[in-house]
Amino acid sequence: MTTPMTTPMMPSTDPAVLPETTPDYVLLTPGPLTTAPQTRAAATVDWGSWDGDFRAVTREVCDRLLAIADRGPGYACVPMQGSGTFIVEAMVGTLVPRDGKLLVLSNGAYGDRMVATARRMGRAVDVLRTDEDVPPDPQAVADRLRDDAAITHVAVVQCETTTGILNPVDAVAQVVQAAGRRLLVDAMSAFGALPLAAATRYDAIVASSNKCLEGLPGFGFAVVREDALRVCEGNAHSLSLDLYDQWLYLQRTGQWRFTPPTHVVAAFLQALRLFEAEGGRPAREARYRANCAALVDGLRRLGLQPLLAAEIQAPIIVTVHAPVGPGYDFSALYAGLKARGFVIYPGKLTRAETFRVGCIGAIGPEALERFVDALADVLQQQGLAPRHDPSAA
Amino acid sequence: MTTPMTTPMMPSTDPAVLPETTPDYVLLTPGPLTTAPQTRAAATVDWGSWDGDFRAVTREVCDRLLAIADRGPGYACVPMQGSGTFIVEAMVGTLVPRDGKLLVLSNGAYGDRMVATARRMGRAVDVLRTDEDVPPDPQAVADRLRDDAAITHVAVVQCETTTGILNPVDAVAQVVQAAGRRLLVDAMSAFGALPLAAATRYDAIVASSNKCLEGLPGFGFAVVREDALRVCEGNAHSLSLDLYDQWLYLQRTGQWRFTPPTHVVAAFLQALRLFEAEGGRPAREARYRANCAALVDGLRRLGLQPLLAAEIQAPIIVTVHAPVGPGYDFSALYAGLKARGFVIYPGKLTRAETFRVGCIGAIGPEALERFVDALADVLQQQGLAPRHDPSAA
Repeated sequence: MTTPMTTPMMPSTDPAVLPETTPDYVLLTPGPLTTAPQTRAAATVDWGSWDGDFRAVTREVCDRLLAIADRGPGYACVPMQGSGTFIVEAMVGTLVPRDGKLLVLSNGAYGDRMVATARRMGRAVDVLRTDEDVPPDPQAVADRLRDDAAITHVAVVQCETTTGILNPVDAVAQVVQAAGRRLLVDAMSAFGALPLAAATRYDAIVASSNKCLEGLPGFGFAVVREDALRVCEGNAHSLSLDLYDQWLYLQRTGQWRFTPPTHVVAAFLQALRLFEAEGGRPAREARYRANCAALVDGLRRLGLQPLLAAEIQAPIIVTVHAPVGPGYDFSALYAGLKARGFVIYPGKLTRAETFRVGCIGAIGPEALERFVDALADVLQQQGLAPRHDPSAA
Repeated sequence: MTTPMTTPMMPSTDPAVLPETTPDYVLLTPGPLTTAPQTRAAATVDWGSWDGDFRAVTREVCDRLLAIADRGPGYACVPMQGSGTFIVEAMVGTLVPRDGKLLVLSNGAYGDRMVATARRMGRAVDVLRTDEDVPPDPQAVADRLRDDAAITHVAVVQCETTTGILNPVDAVAQVVQAAGRRLLVDAMSAFGALPLAAATRYDAIVASSNKCLEGLPGFGFAVVREDALRVCEGNAHSLSLDLYDQWLYLQRTGQWRFTPPTHVVAAFLQALRLFEAEGGRPAREARYRANCAALVDGLRRLGLQPLLAAEIQAPIIVTVHAPVGPGYDFSALYAGLKARGFVIYPGKLTRAETFRVGCIGAIGPEALERFVDALADVLQQQGLAPRHDPSAA
């Protein structure tokens, strides 16, 4: 060993090196979202990724996710490092064989991203597109499957956060099963809050840690039918995103194949325990529905109009027609709301000026009511009025 | 909106739902490792990933990483979600063109994994393998490059944590440059602690958040030559792991392309500020060298032998010949040390019984001295003796 060049020292405990800015606002965004303090506190422990204590954390996380999915025996839970897009890519790359063909039902950016993902990895892919405010028609899916025998898999997004639309996964699953094809579900913004029928059959459903289960961002997970996964050795285009290898390694060792985001996983376990303490999926859905109702009612009181009809509005994120006024500018609206303690999301539509407000996270309806008050204040201060009924502002 | 099914409630604050087990031991592992309390505390804030505050966090992280890499202008820092393996795969998949050929210099599991990664994505790949305790010979690299004109890129692991060996990246870079080929460096367990010569030229160097910079695990990063990256559109086999797209999006918006692990990124910024407060790379290297010296000296006092000669031992992780005794069992040794507050790593060699002890993380030499005392205690209690000189135990 060479001699140390300077006196070794431990990292400074000088508070001056702590972050100067720590945000203190409610995230009304579709994830990352506002999480419970206990969840974040659980991220402050260093775990050895190889150690038995951490393997127990992983096992409990997977067991709890399987219980939430409630598909009965024969399913495995496989976590995957990265954002939600990574687990979607892992699902498509691992479960659609190289000579398979994927039909994506798309009415927004996340459906389109699945198409781009499949194309990039060289899988045959087709798309059944509907307008951003129109759910896919199960009959149209049945027709397409009848007309194209090459299609092996159908992919659908349960809640498309481009608009907040709820897509009819149960009805789609029925026609996919009737046609003898396999279903892949992107339930990113729905899993843990919005139910699927007990009879609904899929090969895989994926979501991420930072959505309706209210964990920190850093990994996703798939609930996969084991008999579908068992035949997928060598399918994946990517070593890192190989769900089959990840599953095999997890079964054999109880460990993630490559370094897991240990702190985020431990925080997620805490979030899952809070989820159970709250009353599980029905309670989570009820809270989000109350949040969404408080938001939509409040927006209507201000004269602002949601984009979607109530029947297709998932209680996850609401797209709102932007107000009008000589000075309307999303950035100014955003800044005004942020100054009042709320972070919202820009709209993602090309054909209408909108903004989006999330209903999910560790918040209750009173947070949405406070948000509506803040919005009223900003509208007044910025001289803005609702698009359809200016008198109501 | 439908009526809530139950009364909405906020997550419980009942302490009974907090994790029952929070580990409290020193991680003598090559990452995840022991981090500073301030770093972990910085993970307890919810950030909006779209928000300007978080964009400023990302910008400062990237600027600091570029400064640590110290290659001068013309380099970009591109972060990537996932474990270290993900950023290695992103580097290979994006920078080696589809008609390129990669030569991997391998003397351990991480070199071999790069070979497997390139193979999986369908890139032409060859390997120049040396024994696990033998660094690659730059002359042999030069010979191979002279003999195989198809090779476009050479990849090398700076510190191969399979053994802890230090590979001669500077010398390899010289022959690669002389042969007009391009160099990719996996500096996972070295970046921020072990220097490269100022003249050493590479197209990309990659590392992860949870190694010598002492952050939490959850993402990796590449420092890439911009003129090399600029021509890589469409190279990548994977949408998620496309370093080019990630770079473009980051340049245009200041944001990560897909959801970043916000809490881990904020904690990493804190870790980078602590890194600077400690004195930067020279101070980090000095502390790790002192840690390694305390460890190796202590092991020798117990009669235990490191696998590697001092000249090729990086001050990152030390592979140690296992002790002998009727009851020797790695699990028992591991459990004995863990009960005394230390988590070590199993050996990864096939041809010798070993264990590994990390020297990195937010710890000083006194932690390694305490570890040696704990090890002496366990050896005595378990009736174990060093392999070479039993009398010294």
